[in-house]
Amino acid sequence: MAQASAKPNRNPAPDLVSTEKFNHLESIAVNFSRRDAETTNLVLRTVRCLIADLCEQFKGGHPGSAMGMAAIGVALWKYVMRYSPENPNFFNRDRFVLSNGHTCLWQYTFMHLVGYKSMTLDQLKSYHSTRTDSICPGHPEIEIDGIEVTTGPLGQGIANAVGLAMATKHLAATYNRPGFNLVSNTTWCMVGDACLQEGVALEAISLAGHWKLDNLIVIYDNNQITCDGSVDLANTEDANAKMAASGWEVLEVADGNDNVEAIVAALVAARSSKSGKPVFVNIKTTIGVGSRIAGDARAHGAAFGPQEVANIKETAGFNPENSFVIPDTVYDFFSDVKGHGWQLENDWAELVAAYGEEHLDLASEFALRVKGEFTEDWTQIVPAKENFPATPTASRKSAGLVCNPLAARLKTLMVGTADLTPSVNMVWKGKVDFQHPNLRPSCGITGDYTGRYIHWGVREHAMAAISNGLAAFNKGTILPVTSSFFMFYLYAAPAVRMGALQRLQAIHIATHDSIGTGEDGPTHQPIELAALYRAMPNLLYIRPADSEETAGAFVAALSALDMPTIISLSRQSLPQYPDHSSRDGVLQGAYIFIEQHNADVTLIGVGSEMRFAVRAREILRDRFGLAARIVSFPCQRLFERQPREYKTRVLRYREGIPRVVIEAYAANGWERYADAGYSMSSFGHSLPGEAAYKYFGYEENLIASRISEFVSEVKRSGIDSIRGEFRDLNIRDH
Amino acid sequence: MAQASAKPNRNPAPDLVSTEKFNHLESIAVNFSRRDAETTNLVLRTVRCLIADLCEQFKGGHPGSAMGMAAIGVALWKYVMRYSPENPNFFNRDRFVLSNGHTCLWQYTFMHLVGYKSMTLDQLKSYHSTRTDSICPGHPEIEIDGIEVTTGPLGQGIANAVGLAMATKHLAATYNRPGFNLVSNTTWCMVGDACLQEGVALEAISLAGHWKLDNLIVIYDNNQITCDGSVDLANTEDANAKMAASGWEVLEVADGNDNVEAIVAALVAARSSKSGKPVFVNIKTTIGVGSRIAGDARAHGAAFGPQEVANIKETAGFNPENSFVIPDTVYDFFSDVKGHGWQLENDWAELVAAYGEEHLDLASEFALRVKGEFTEDWTQIVPAKENFPATPTASRKSAGLVCNPLAARLKTLMVGTADLTPSVNMVWKGKVDFQHPNLRPSCGITGDYTGRYIHWGVREHAMAAISNGLAAFNKGTILPVTSSFFMFYLYAAPAVRMGALQRLQAIHIATHDSIGTGEDGPTHQPIELAALYRAMPNLLYIRPADSEETAGAFVAALSALDMPTIISLSRQSLPQYPDHSSRDGVLQGAYIFIEQHNADVTLIGVGSEMRFAVRAREILRDRFGLAARIVSFPCQRLFERQPREYKTRVLRYREGIPRVVIEAYAANGWERYADAGYSMSSFGHSLPGEAAYKYFGYEENLIASRISEFVSEVKRSGIDSIRGEFRDLNIRDH
Repeated sequence: MAQASAKPNRNPAPDLVSTEKFNHLESIAVNFSRRDAETTNLVLRTVRCLIADLCEQFKGGHPGSAMGMAAIGVALWKYVMRYSPENPNFFNRDRFVLSNGHTCLWQYTFMHLVGYKSMTLDQLKSYHSTRTDSICPGHPEIEIDGIEVTTGPLGQGIANAVGLAMATKHLAATYNRPGFNLVSNTTWCMVGDACLQEGVALEAISLAGHWKLDNLIVIYDNNQITCDGSVDLANTEDANAKMAASGWEVLEVADGNDNVEAIVAALVAARSSKSGKPVFVNIKTTIGVGSRIAGDARAHGAAFGPQEVANIKETAGFNPENSFVIPDTVYDFFSDVKGHGWQLENDWAELVAAYGEEHLDLASEFALRVKGEFTEDWTQIVPAKENFPATPTASRKSAGLVCNPLAARLKTLMVGTADLTPSVNMVWKGKVDFQHPNLRPSCGITGDYTGRYIHWGVREHAMAAISNGLAAFNKGTILPVTSSFFMFYLYAAPAVRMGALQRLQAIHIATHDSIGTGEDGPTHQPIELAALYRAMPNLLYIRPADSEETAGAFVAALSALDMPTIISLSRQSLPQYPDHSSRDGVLQGAYIFIEQHNADVTLIGVGSEMRFAVRAREILRDRFGLAARIVSFPCQRLFERQPREYKTRVLRYREGIPRVVIEAYAANGWERYADAGYSMSSFGHSLPGEAAYKYFGYEENLIASRISEFVSEVKRSGIDSIRGEFRDLNIRDH
Repeated sequence: MAQASAKPNRNPAPDLVSTEKFNHLESIAVNFSRRDAETTNLVLRTVRCLIADLCEQFKGGHPGSAMGMAAIGVALWKYVMRYSPENPNFFNRDRFVLSNGHTCLWQYTFMHLVGYKSMTLDQLKSYHSTRTDSICPGHPEIEIDGIEVTTGPLGQGIANAVGLAMATKHLAATYNRPGFNLVSNTTWCMVGDACLQEGVALEAISLAGHWKLDNLIVIYDNNQITCDGSVDLANTEDANAKMAASGWEVLEVADGNDNVEAIVAALVAARSSKSGKPVFVNIKTTIGVGSRIAGDARAHGAAFGPQEVANIKETAGFNPENSFVIPDTVYDFFSDVKGHGWQLENDWAELVAAYGEEHLDLASEFALRVKGEFTEDWTQIVPAKENFPATPTASRKSAGLVCNPLAARLKTLMVGTADLTPSVNMVWKGKVDFQHPNLRPSCGITGDYTGRYIHWGVREHAMAAISNGLAAFNKGTILPVTSSFFMFYLYAAPAVRMGALQRLQAIHIATHDSIGTGEDGPTHQPIELAALYRAMPNLLYIRPADSEETAGAFVAALSALDMPTIISLSRQSLPQYPDHSSRDGVLQGAYIFIEQHNADVTLIGVGSEMRFAVRAREILRDRFGLAARIVSFPCQRLFERQPREYKTRVLRYREGIPRVVIEAYAANGWERYADAGYSMSSFGHSLPGEAAYKYFGYEENLIASRISEFVSEVKRSGIDSIRGEFRDLNIRDH
């Protein structure tokens, strides 16, 4: 997605601009007339036939819900939403999220009708085609103008929408001043029956209610059908009562198929509600309305077939011989939308200009935020190596030493934790919680929407998914920092993946990252999780070995504007290596930690297991007369980016020196860089950290002894004898 | 966990045994006396001091909630639960799940007091110690007598409990007959504030309400504290109203700290409720009750320190000089529990015996189920190679061909889908849905508790977590088969992991497993997910290449009694290779698919990408004059189990033949078996399957050409020149 930009100030306002101008669309809704009703009926029929045609051409797609939601689409794109089709990135636009992303053809169709330039009819026809230039993929993708977030995996979108609404609340509280509602957009989110079943959605719903995000409106396409058939097959709860219990206002529309006026009225009521709560608009629709399989699951995920498409068109009063028909009346109907958009942009530009005169400093800071730039030079804030304690330090503590001053000074950062404040060290002096201002002051709970510390509760998945929304509001405006135990980033993984797929910058602070985490046992000891994140495209997984490397991890994360970073940290204290460790080395993924001429072996040390490499090196020298060099290898992806010459020089594998990686994880993936591994091949064990290491053979004498045997074999049989067959040196398998 | 066994029939019953005998504990509760109240007070004080001592000795653990839940513990283990401490695996025992697993010391303590043989005071003292023989790990583990499931990652336990309750409902509906309530146990589950925030718990709660599991009682330790402090920081919803909206009955206890009688009354009411719903018992407690930081988050996850522990003891009327004190009165108080257990076992044995006389066939089948044995020889049900169509077949269809007859005939199998019935082909003829019998017959929705087809809704995580409960009810009695798109096993991953950690057999049918899934796009195309499951201990991740290999995958999965299996399947049609593919080969993980003497290169084909290997081989021969052999490699873990001689023979890497793996996944992990890979290094793209393959360079001529270049280099420079540096041959990186 291109960098958002505020429109240039085309018409400087002579005096203060009131927010009243934003309300013009309300009057349109109120003036909804009989004529409109007739035209909208044509629009509905047109949209449904078009969707049926588009799915039919390549025999696939999801037509049913898209047809059922036609009237909701008219209400949103014609009457209710505030946006500018010709400037999809207008900063104060309403955000729209299609959580039921498989119905994307519906969104593409309305984007075409209201005049998003790139969304031509020709493009609509590329849906499900083999065209690689298509901007109509099977699920909405953030790279497309007018799409706020990529959706598809159910439940993610509604969580993203919570993040988008939070971003508005936060920016509004930070920058709006009396008479200047600079940030005042509404977030709209469409969900289907399925989204409301997913855990991540339920977590996000709880949080939106807790934070009283009254700028968030979730529209429920209640067609009571999922792939398997009736929703009753798997869900018979009282959705409205559940939403109300979660702190939401609930509105209902009985006829969502055709009654555009009722939908508009409900959506306008939702936006203007004074309940101070997010609003859930439950709209009853019929899947595949207009077809003979209306209300049936068969209308969900397949084309109708030529006969039924012909029938749909005939029933709708269209000639079944013709396809992709959009009458001029339909285009005319939406023709005023562009103008409304220009007016919105213009009004906002005037408002921003006037704000600039009244609130000079805030305005220039706001301008930087809009541009997606940091408001301070963070390179000056990251502590220098000499500022770290030389005594053993847990890398989770190092992360606090680096991140706390960043969080204190960079307004871009919103830092939160999935209920592990005492463990993850992310609290900075003077932090204010992101909370509704009237939450529970009587109980000593403080905070307001300007707050940048987020208590996510025990909701790792929503934490990451909502953070994607924060990051997607306008790239660079908010940089979310999440935190939890590394193991629980498995709960968050589907959302971390969506962040990587969308190239959204985020920093995930993942502490307690090895068996060294100790007593909590195998449920809390990640063995295999790094294999996932090292394989995941567009993501940095970094395991720093000490404070200096932790600083490097933050530099990498802050510099990676188009991807999330996981910084993987120890619970336990780690020795510091100021003479060897290097933040610049981290940026190269791997680097020479201790060089050694005439080396017999290269030890690859990683994160909290670096200490075993360093100690084993000494024992190899003193007890076995072997010379070992050490490579620190905090990040495979960063290393992959280096030129071959660098890789060769660091790993020296072409010189016949065998390489052994030492890490208390499954070896999977290290085979690319090492000939042997001292690794884990089972789950962990509940023991104090040091004892857990010992239990699994992580003890320097044992490690050195196994490595010396391996090196002897290499010396005896030649390096080529051991290449092509990765060797597992850890025999303490439980 | 040892295999469960029904007690031998010590006292054959002369006539039909009524279920009345099971109710003796109800009368105990009703007769709760003043004397009991005094003794229970001593018990509460003892338990709290003991927990404070046990955390203090090694300066760690979670004392606060364990102390707050003392009265609940007395109510459960002394008065309400039906179990036999001396036979922890008594088949019809009540199941207890500690979803807030960090409070495990509480459970261990009561297990000690009621007389679980292995849970000695000495063992209690091993909590957080370095003793490797400890059965008191930091979270409860299934391997310990009396622990039903491993818990710790929040939200998992309550989902497991739903599975345990389902298992009871299903077995009861299948085997109970009038007068013979063979399976009649209750499932109890303890949750804290945090569990109720996790998405997986919320999904499971919806399902339990939907299925009206009135044999499930969830006890909410409502202390309103999590790590960060007050629950109000992150959760202000109306928990009771939310549970009621989800179809649960709600009961409350105001004083959960001390009023054992009120708790017993509530729990007895919950069990005897006629609401036909699962019951949520909301019990108000105080974290760290009895200490000076009662009600504070500081009591949550750390020892109190010696001074406060002394104060706790003094306040409780104990001598602060003494530690780990358990007065005889306390042991005496629980001394009747063993007897009740014997009686329960005896009654049940009599009941089973009488049942055997009345219902001969059912009884012998039931006996097999209790033993955890299949009721039929499944090896006779798996279709033979010649029964598969020779025409191109999607492996998801092959999976249906194999699994449908298994599901039809093996009562052990409970097969379900996360709302993808039309896609995953798991429906067999005559399948009955697992549903409450009175669900919605008027809407044509049928099913009852005997049903073995489960509509999970769009809840992948709960599907896997609840399935762990089904599998844990009694190992081998129920074999859950789940299904969804492979990509959504990322949502399910935390529960799949818990299944692997607990060595619970399950089969996960993961369809749409590569970019070949097509139009749904990158959100649905798994690139990196296999890296996780290939690295996960105790789990088989199998990607079959055709129907025969799919049969092999099922044979492997059914044979793997102590681990879950993911069978990874294509959406798209795949060529069949009856002359090459082998189910026995699958069991070895990898095998020679096409041998070739004087081979220039070994191609490793995997799953749906086997066709590229086969075609590339032909092009290499015809266009480049190169001889290629092919290894099919469906499962890395199974291959790892083979002797080195077999590995060498299959891969022939010691003969200087370079190996190239062809798979449309990230290469991570293949470096162990291959010298080069034709792999993915980015996320996928929304295009029809075949076009998506082309877009990413999966086209036989291109593949052959790149491989021939690689082979030429090897011939030119020698095999050793390319070893030690994995080569990525796919240059179509997007």
